[in-house]
Amino acid sequence: MSPTAAPLRLSTTSADFEAQFAARLHWSADTDSAIEQRVADILADVQQRGDTAVLAYTERFDGLSVDSLKTLELTQSELKAAFDGLPTAQRNALESAARRVRSYHEAQKKASGESWSYRDEDGTLLGQKVTPLDRVGIYVPGGKAAYPSSVLMNAIPAHVAGVAEIIMVVPTPRGEKNPLVLAAAYVAGVTRAFTIGGAQAVAALAYGTATVPKVDKITGPGNAYVASAKKRVFGTVGIDMIAGPSEILVLADGSTPAEWVAMDLFSQAEHDELAQSILLCPDAAYIEAVQAAIDRLLPTMPRAAIIARSLNDRGALIQTRNMEEACAISNRIAPEHLEVSSAEPHRWEPLLKHAGAIFLGAYTSESLGDYCAGPNHVLPTSGTARFSSPLGVYDFQKRSSLIEVSAAGAQTLGTIAAELAYGEGLQAHARAAEMRLNDVPPMRVAK
Amino acid sequence: MSPTAAPLRLSTTSADFEAQFAARLHWSADTDSAIEQRVADILADVQQRGDTAVLAYTERFDGLSVDSLKTLELTQSELKAAFDGLPTAQRNALESAARRVRSYHEAQKKASGESWSYRDEDGTLLGQKVTPLDRVGIYVPGGKAAYPSSVLMNAIPAHVAGVAEIIMVVPTPRGEKNPLVLAAAYVAGVTRAFTIGGAQAVAALAYGTATVPKVDKITGPGNAYVASAKKRVFGTVGIDMIAGPSEILVLADGSTPAEWVAMDLFSQAEHDELAQSILLCPDAAYIEAVQAAIDRLLPTMPRAAIIARSLNDRGALIQTRNMEEACAISNRIAPEHLEVSSAEPHRWEPLLKHAGAIFLGAYTSESLGDYCAGPNHVLPTSGTARFSSPLGVYDFQKRSSLIEVSAAGAQTLGTIAAELAYGEGLQAHARAAEMRLNDVPPMRVAK
Repeated sequence: MSPTAAPLRLSTTSADFEAQFAARLHWSADTDSAIEQRVADILADVQQRGDTAVLAYTERFDGLSVDSLKTLELTQSELKAAFDGLPTAQRNALESAARRVRSYHEAQKKASGESWSYRDEDGTLLGQKVTPLDRVGIYVPGGKAAYPSSVLMNAIPAHVAGVAEIIMVVPTPRGEKNPLVLAAAYVAGVTRAFTIGGAQAVAALAYGTATVPKVDKITGPGNAYVASAKKRVFGTVGIDMIAGPSEILVLADGSTPAEWVAMDLFSQAEHDELAQSILLCPDAAYIEAVQAAIDRLLPTMPRAAIIARSLNDRGALIQTRNMEEACAISNRIAPEHLEVSSAEPHRWEPLLKHAGAIFLGAYTSESLGDYCAGPNHVLPTSGTARFSSPLGVYDFQKRSSLIEVSAAGAQTLGTIAAELAYGEGLQAHARAAEMRLNDVPPMRVAK
Repeated sequence: MSPTAAPLRLSTTSADFEAQFAARLHWSADTDSAIEQRVADILADVQQRGDTAVLAYTERFDGLSVDSLKTLELTQSELKAAFDGLPTAQRNALESAARRVRSYHEAQKKASGESWSYRDEDGTLLGQKVTPLDRVGIYVPGGKAAYPSSVLMNAIPAHVAGVAEIIMVVPTPRGEKNPLVLAAAYVAGVTRAFTIGGAQAVAALAYGTATVPKVDKITGPGNAYVASAKKRVFGTVGIDMIAGPSEILVLADGSTPAEWVAMDLFSQAEHDELAQSILLCPDAAYIEAVQAAIDRLLPTMPRAAIIARSLNDRGALIQTRNMEEACAISNRIAPEHLEVSSAEPHRWEPLLKHAGAIFLGAYTSESLGDYCAGPNHVLPTSGTARFSSPLGVYDFQKRSSLIEVSAAGAQTLGTIAAELAYGEGLQAHARAAEMRLNDVPPMRVAK
């Protein structure tokens, strides 16, 4: 029997809307304390025993037994061979996608990632110098979620930022390598790659081992062990956001073919059972049409079972009073992917405050953004778009403030700084400022 | 007997330099697992019992017993009264500092925090929209480290970013309020303020209680409990970096008066015993002169005991072969504060890759930057300048990608996306792209 999918039907005019809406959105990022403890142990072990520990966990978790971690390094020629071995259409698609992603991130660097400075009226120079990180680690999941597009989306911004060394880790359970992933590493300009994964790979990157170099930051998605490990090494190295299940929200005014919208909802739902697909629309007849398209299209999908489970358990088709209300609800959700499937997308866009990526108009399916439109597909999930951003060039850069106080500036600033420093009881701070004054006053006693 | 300070003397030409240098730099950010557990319990309790839990911990840890959390909210008129009650010189200094900090952060927003977009040749729009966070929480430590300048440095960038609500928390053990901290909150435009602290205040901000509103991000320094709590709520809300002990590195070519440099080293050391002050200089005679200045000036300092302890335990005066080597060593340390105390600061600045803030030239004492030059004084510590940045307007903004694919663009992009989606086994992604093609091809079977 083929599965059926009936996302929860809600209407904002129902008395119980708020309760049902809250229940459907609920997802807890709480980590299992047993996982936390196991991860803490693995990290400590890798920190202490280095390569030996990584080898032991790789044998245990990935069923890969080798004598030396060096054996698990992929050579550049192996990456190139994977690329050369792809069918022409795949090779071209990979290169076109990489080119577009690169060009978008170059624009991003130009718009917000360059050094700047100015001098104020007394000749004091103020600014920020923007520099790339030296070395970063990119985690690429193995198994069912081994996505070559993720390799591009993590490595290319790092490359554009000017990171000198990009170290990729990807687990290959029982030695099975994904040629598309290797090819993507080649196209994206990954410097070195190791077939290791899990908390042990995160530890190797964070602390360094004899074989795996210590990096400055680790990005990329992973399972609960990887997420817990990244959270734990945060501070020793930088990390990107901890990703939750993927979500799509479609705001529809009824002008897009219903089948397109149904397929966009599927494209989120097919990731996994926890993925969330939500439609917000003021038009009841259109919601019916989308449900009918779901019924029609679902049986044609190879991943129908996963799609049905995701839509039934977490999906929703919500009728709103109008598009304005749909925008307001979208802001409460702060979705990872937000499609404005409307004939007037620029009318609604200014009302949308929180979202990882906003896809405007009927032609902008999320899947185009996932692969090749140019913007990054690593986006804040589970409402974290309220405070975080897509992965970008800025994640692979850091800033240093620049200050050059002129002799004249030191007179004005010194007086202000000394006053506040005495107020905070920090006498040496005050004196360091006062010593640079033309007339050094006697030392005061800080409060 | 007055304390004496003799920072460790090292020379890069010594055989044991590397070992001694590594030992002196060593500092572990590892958190105590007992603290971690207590913090986890406090967070869970506040999440469950809200106000009641916060009140109980405030009574236990701060000796403050009240009936309702509302009593612990500071009114705007109380903040204003604190400001009005300050001596004129302090009031003026606070306002001048705030004005300069604001003007620097406005320049920062203009340089790197504005929305941008472009259209490619087929009419597809790509860009990023930059928006402020809705509501942020600022943690201000109480007790000996209650610094009004920290209030300015956290609240002003949030204000410049356009954050609508800035919620400050500051513990007031036994009810003692610091008027300068309250005045700074007034000057910086804090929206609401509560006299609570510790892990319970972090929990209240992260989860929200009946009285304390839930925020999107928490910034500001704190003790080990606060740091552990922030790390644990990361993901539920955003956080800034976890701060370690403060550090200064002075690169000196011998052209700055030795007493100025000695006082700059003191100004770091006076923060606390764990603070680290290091001088790198190729000139042995100048290093002697700095040590002599230390000997001369130390007895005049009210915080001489702390300064001596910090310099003796963690300080170092390092003779290098030349300034180039000094710059290379500085990059290995990636200091929080980096003074280029040289007659030619712009000669060395390009060699400096990793630092929180770079202070150029003899007149630019760190203390001017701490209070009023304009750049932020919240800076990455303990080598984290390798991958992180000063607190800035960007920490109170987030970005949303904007994509509007034209009908023409959907033809090119759709083919590329479908090819890659089939390669990843994601059939719905492929079909969502293919449905937008003018000639919809038959569905392929994903690998």
